[in-house]
Amino acid sequence: MNADRITSPQNLRVKEVVRLRDHRGRDERGRIVIDGRREVLRAVEAGVEIAELYYCPSLLGADDEERVLAPARGRQIELVEVTEPVFAKMSYGDRAEGLLAVAGRPMRALDGLRLGSRPLIAVVEGVEKPGNLGAILRSADAAGVDAVIAADPAADIYGPNAIRASLGTVFTVPLVEAPAEETSLWLDRRGLSIVAACPAGGQVYTEVDMTGPTAVVLGSEAHGLTTAWQQPCIVQAVVPMRGRADSLNLSITAALFFYEALRQRGGGSSVAPRVAGVSR
Amino acid sequence: MNADRITSPQNLRVKEVVRLRDHRGRDERGRIVIDGRREVLRAVEAGVEIAELYYCPSLLGADDEERVLAPARGRQIELVEVTEPVFAKMSYGDRAEGLLAVAGRPMRALDGLRLGSRPLIAVVEGVEKPGNLGAILRSADAAGVDAVIAADPAADIYGPNAIRASLGTVFTVPLVEAPAEETSLWLDRRGLSIVAACPAGGQVYTEVDMTGPTAVVLGSEAHGLTTAWQQPCIVQAVVPMRGRADSLNLSITAALFFYEALRQRGGGSSVAPRVAGVSR
Repeated sequence: MNADRITSPQNLRVKEVVRLRDHRGRDERGRIVIDGRREVLRAVEAGVEIAELYYCPSLLGADDEERVLAPARGRQIELVEVTEPVFAKMSYGDRAEGLLAVAGRPMRALDGLRLGSRPLIAVVEGVEKPGNLGAILRSADAAGVDAVIAADPAADIYGPNAIRASLGTVFTVPLVEAPAEETSLWLDRRGLSIVAACPAGGQVYTEVDMTGPTAVVLGSEAHGLTTAWQQPCIVQAVVPMRGRADSLNLSITAALFFYEALRQRGGGSSVAPRVAGVSR
Repeated sequence: MNADRITSPQNLRVKEVVRLRDHRGRDERGRIVIDGRREVLRAVEAGVEIAELYYCPSLLGADDEERVLAPARGRQIELVEVTEPVFAKMSYGDRAEGLLAVAGRPMRALDGLRLGSRPLIAVVEGVEKPGNLGAILRSADAAGVDAVIAADPAADIYGPNAIRASLGTVFTVPLVEAPAEETSLWLDRRGLSIVAACPAGGQVYTEVDMTGPTAVVLGSEAHGLTTAWQQPCIVQAVVPMRGRADSLNLSITAALFFYEALRQRGGGSSVAPRVAGVSR
């Protein structure tokens, strides 16, 4: 496919991309914007359906032509060359890597998750800051968490901050959006132990057995967990606080739980393959 | 002391505060700016020498008069009332809590640290992003780390982002700035085991004994650790990475080490008093 070239920031396609910067714009069109080289590569690698790939030759890295553009030329991806002022108008924040993709919004459902024999799942309820979700995904990726469920998110899980903070792992870690009540029932039916991270009270998290099939549930930054996670069969677990500030960042609490589960599973020393994935 | 009142953003004192927004301005004057209610309160609590306290009555919280201003009236603190436009000019980012303090820069030295029998110290070398240092301090506070040493920092450890990300724990956790070589010798002379967090290679961090007097050393985001931390007696420890992104945020790596030490020390279940402090 031959490449188009856009030189005017007033071009209608540029305006269309700018519209996707807005949560509502993304919802209306069922499309998302992916900024940055690493993020675009991870999306491609994860099989996300890229519709358009905008690139600015003067901003590209040395091997971007070979690593990103050349493979795209062989596919159903529309390649569009743009000038620096056009790229500046379309791109997010200070990203000047010269690569930006418009992609179909990944749509995954709980029943699309394929769970292995001993899955470790993270549930993030009502997340308000997309950057926090992104940071949690990055840690989930690192710790080998099998899937992340965003339960009733209060922010777009494919917003630019979520993508950026995740370093693109928002595409590679199986990620599902679902209502909290449905998630809780789904986990229960599949026999996972549910461990809810609570800011106060409960068992110390290092004393909670997470060696079996386990879901770690994290509440929103401002409001904590809803009543969907307060049934008797759900273990309430706490990270001990010994200081004056009495709070940990949500993404840090998440990482502590994920890595504690990994430690208990002896997964620190040997590298085992992932046990779950998502069917698309 | 009677309160002054400033109504013009052109006032010289306002300009003086704005100058302290700049790293160089802070260095030249040996003063720092503290934004926000919680941060000012923590600084006062920690004995930081507050010189001036600016407040904007229409932005203050319900009990700020009683909790912050009234105690200040009895001390050598200059209280200055300002209007909203003046406050907006002086304050950092979107903080609109109506409280801002100018304080003497805390000056602490290694030899001012009083170590207990089994201290846990964090060393952060060459930190580039003040927000990362702040986040590390917040986790250090939560995990009961006894002191944090910023070795050859590449950013102002009392910059506004460090203060904000730390939730004010930059004042309550004993914090020292020192050269890396000197820090390494100092730790060694005091018999601490030094554990260096490495992105690759080394022992898995959960298998490193951190029950004795221990210093956890974290490298800079971009450049890792310098040769000051590559001696044979220093344990190289790694957080296992099982994903595709192959990197954890520095503040998350720090929290994993701190909480692993706490777990090994059995500190999760019982609450013991802090074992070290700083003499001022």
